[in-house]
Amino acid sequence: MDKIKRNERLGAMTKILTDTPNRIHTLSEFCALFGAAKSTISEDIDLISASFERFDLGRVETVAGASGGVRYRAIPSGAKIKRVLTDLSDRLSEPGRMLPGGFLYTSDIVSESATAQAMGEILAAKYYDRKPHFVLTMETKGIPVALMTARMLDVPLVIARRDSRAYEGSAVKINYIAGGGSERIETMALARRAVGTGQRALIIDDFMKGGGTLQGMVDLMKEFLAEVVGVGVMIATAKPERKRVEGAKALLILEGFEQDTGRAIIRPAEEYM
Amino acid sequence: MDKIKRNERLGAMTKILTDTPNRIHTLSEFCALFGAAKSTISEDIDLISASFERFDLGRVETVAGASGGVRYRAIPSGAKIKRVLTDLSDRLSEPGRMLPGGFLYTSDIVSESATAQAMGEILAAKYYDRKPHFVLTMETKGIPVALMTARMLDVPLVIARRDSRAYEGSAVKINYIAGGGSERIETMALARRAVGTGQRALIIDDFMKGGGTLQGMVDLMKEFLAEVVGVGVMIATAKPERKRVEGAKALLILEGFEQDTGRAIIRPAEEYM
Repeated sequence: MDKIKRNERLGAMTKILTDTPNRIHTLSEFCALFGAAKSTISEDIDLISASFERFDLGRVETVAGASGGVRYRAIPSGAKIKRVLTDLSDRLSEPGRMLPGGFLYTSDIVSESATAQAMGEILAAKYYDRKPHFVLTMETKGIPVALMTARMLDVPLVIARRDSRAYEGSAVKINYIAGGGSERIETMALARRAVGTGQRALIIDDFMKGGGTLQGMVDLMKEFLAEVVGVGVMIATAKPERKRVEGAKALLILEGFEQDTGRAIIRPAEEYM
Repeated sequence: MDKIKRNERLGAMTKILTDTPNRIHTLSEFCALFGAAKSTISEDIDLISASFERFDLGRVETVAGASGGVRYRAIPSGAKIKRVLTDLSDRLSEPGRMLPGGFLYTSDIVSESATAQAMGEILAAKYYDRKPHFVLTMETKGIPVALMTARMLDVPLVIARRDSRAYEGSAVKINYIAGGGSERIETMALARRAVGTGQRALIIDDFMKGGGTLQGMVDLMKEFLAEVVGVGVMIATAKPERKRVEGAKALLILEGFEQDTGRAIIRPAEEYM
């Protein structure tokens, strides 16, 4: 193999690190790949790290210890978070998004991969230190943001279903009170094998009104003897103020709709402003 | 601003390009960001491009013309595709994945972000030249792979629902024949505003047996006067050989299950071997 120059290593290392967020790569892995000494690879990492910091691209960090190495975490700066959430609020308050019944049309935006990724980066950054083993969501609209959060944390995504399906095998099924004022009793189900006893769950969903669905997911985790280490949502309504679930954190707050125009009044949650 | 050296630019440029697959960035954008001349940025791009090629990390390509610039496409090599699909076949044929009724348990694997991304890269690479405007899937299990395919193509994801929901506004609803031998009539719905007339749809799903759901999606697109430019699935069963939908391409073929062990007999589709 030809000797690989720094200029060639930097692009490849950046790609490998950012393609696997939160995963620790040993220096030896890169030494072997590039045929370079550890000191050389360390210098490469310092260069990438400085470049990422300068351009607000997340963090490339060295992790000390026996299982140490280097990892990328997509931790956005406060300024970047504010910009992302303000842009999103602007888009969600475009005219024509109010649906009959006072619902907000979000299906297009929550399914955009770039938006889901930006939200996932912010949510993951909040919960790195809780070390979740997996991200749990309930089908359907929360899946993109939950998947991207799981990607940033380097953990699996687990999807609760409205009904247990034949192709998921034996399942745990619970009833919960669905929100939205109508107080319906609904069912959610999850394959028995999807979650192990004692695992730490991070619950992520796209929308919270009454909090019933989220509390359903919390109850579901109790059945699995799993621990809920956080509940994050993309959009929460300001009212009702009291939610069925405790401690849920939202990125955006939906205050309501303007009476004359029907535009949504939506803003970033206070902690991000 | 301090002068930014090549060593600092390479990491940042790589991150920006790979974070937005298939999106064209102008050289001027990078010139402004780094305070560098076009010729310098061009040399940076050549370095990143060569590094990506050498380490099989996708392609960084210069696009000529008025709307030209540089873009990253996650096009995996034949060798990489083969490795990814072989690994996946091995995992899917682990014991214990056969469920009552001859179903295969895949929920854990299809929801892994890294797996969904690897599949998305392979599927997107197949359909770049069809220039889809969006990716369509049907809830639920196909969403991760469809989202990652959409991410690689830099297009929106559109999710058909089993039922139209109040919070999606007016919807188009069709009936289709669900596969799996049982020949049930089911419903799928999609918000009227989700798709525009004349748009090109790429249909992506996780599993195809009879092909009824996929044909349902094709029929749904007819209602929107949208054109289907491709149908890609992660896993297709070998039987029935004749599917309800035409021209669907699978990454993996499920031949059946071993009688004594219950292991799935699954392999990469021939075109990838």
